[in-house]
Amino acid sequence: MSGIAELTERVRTFAQDRNWEQFHTPKNLAMALAGEVGELLAELQWLTPEQSAAVMQDEELGPRVRAELGDVTIYLVRLADVLGIDLVEAAFDKLADSGRRYTVEAAHSSARKLTAE
Amino acid sequence: MSGIAELTERVRTFAQDRNWEQFHTPKNLAMALAGEVGELLAELQWLTPEQSAAVMQDEELGPRVRAELGDVTIYLVRLADVLGIDLVEAAFDKLADSGRRYTVEAAHSSARKLTAE
Amino acid sequence: MSGIAELTERVRTFAQDRNWEQFHTPKNLAMALAGEVGELLAELQWLTPEQSAAVMQDEELGPRVRAELGDVTIYLVRLADVLGIDLVEAAFDKLADSGRRYTVEAAHSSARKLTAE
Amino acid sequence: MSGIAELTERVRTFAQDRNWEQFHTPKNLAMALAGEVGELLAELQWLTPEQSAAVMQDEELGPRVRAELGDVTIYLVRLADVLGIDLVEAAFDKLADSGRRYTVEAAHSSARKLTAE
Repeated sequence: MSGIAELTERVRTFAQDRNWEQFHTPKNLAMALAGEVGELLAELQWLTPEQSAAVMQDEELGPRVRAELGDVTIYLVRLADVLGIDLVEAAFDKLADSGRRYTVEAAHSSARKLTAE
Repeated sequence: MSGIAELTERVRTFAQDRNWEQFHTPKNLAMALAGEVGELLAELQWLTPEQSAAVMQDEELGPRVRAELGDVTIYLVRLADVLGIDLVEAAFDKLADSGRRYTVEAAHSSARKLTAE
Repeated sequence: MSGIAELTERVRTFAQDRNWEQFHTPKNLAMALAGEVGELLAELQWLTPEQSAAVMQDEELGPRVRAELGDVTIYLVRLADVLGIDLVEAAFDKLADSGRRYTVEAAHSSARKLTAE
Repeated sequence: MSGIAELTERVRTFAQDRNWEQFHTPKNLAMALAGEVGELLAELQWLTPEQSAAVMQDEELGPRVRAELGDVTIYLVRLADVLGIDLVEAAFDKLADSGRRYTVEAAHSSARKLTAE
């Protein structure tokens, strides 16, 4: 069983055990996901790009960033479960789309292209 | 190879091929992740909870929501790769923490508990 | 002096007094703004639409929502100051645009139109 | 009449004319606000801090950033109207709180203090 399938099942059981399924509409879960991403941003907001690149070496910030990514993953996996979406498949499909839109030649080194995404 | 590991590698190659690694600091990727989550919110914002629960049956909205989840997953996986974090492991660790904080007994049916998270 | 101009000046002084101007790039402030909006979402995420409409009558949640709106306003005003943008003017201009795109006749009662925004 | 009060009234009329009040619960408006902040982040995400500081000099990006700030302001003002909150007052109150928590002496030049916010 892949890691993500096992996680999905464990998060589902976690919610069921607490009778939280009633709160877990896609709308509410998307808000919760955004809230967790907001906490992640808060950890990185005052860092320079260079400091952010070394954040995992920071004894205090590193574990906090890891914990925030854990929270984001939990809500993303739960949202996908509720919607019946396979996240990895959806990502591969989107990546294929992006490959057609941003060919290696055109996109090479271009931040403007990226910004226009 | 698990789905997420393969996806991580494919997204990394995608960025390398386009010489985008220079833009992929944790700070920038966290912003990109938040931007994609914002697009997801935009798809769900005017729906009632009930409409959001049925969104995947909507011919127009369903594929858009799936594509947004794909985008969110791509940036989350890329961010984790750059930080050297195992997403599934981080999520399981956070879930264990939450299990201690929200015991089944105390949290049962309580939205207030959840809100206090 | 209008309320927003006075607030802008006070926030600027607040930052200068603490030597925080070095951290207040548009990029960082946009992240901080998003982080505060994330905290606002967290207060509302498990509420039903009806509960959210009555949130200011809740003794505990009401003041928290107000405080989050205060934080959002502080960072928005600071960001606009750093960018040299007049927020109210920018909003009026955008509203005029939207008025052309969503005429009263076409947009009447239409959530789909809104979703497509 | 202060700029923000006039804007608030104009946004309210805009929504009433289109029969959009039914969609404008605090929950939905907070999501819309977050969606617009996400679009703002998307404009800035690949820029260096220095590029972000000069973004208003960019012919293409400048007007887009201004338009996003306009959108953010519209939804923030609308949300405050629906909740019955005076944004400027709420911000001044929050600023007074922050002044007590971050005294000029303790907070001077400290990013870590800020991060801990």
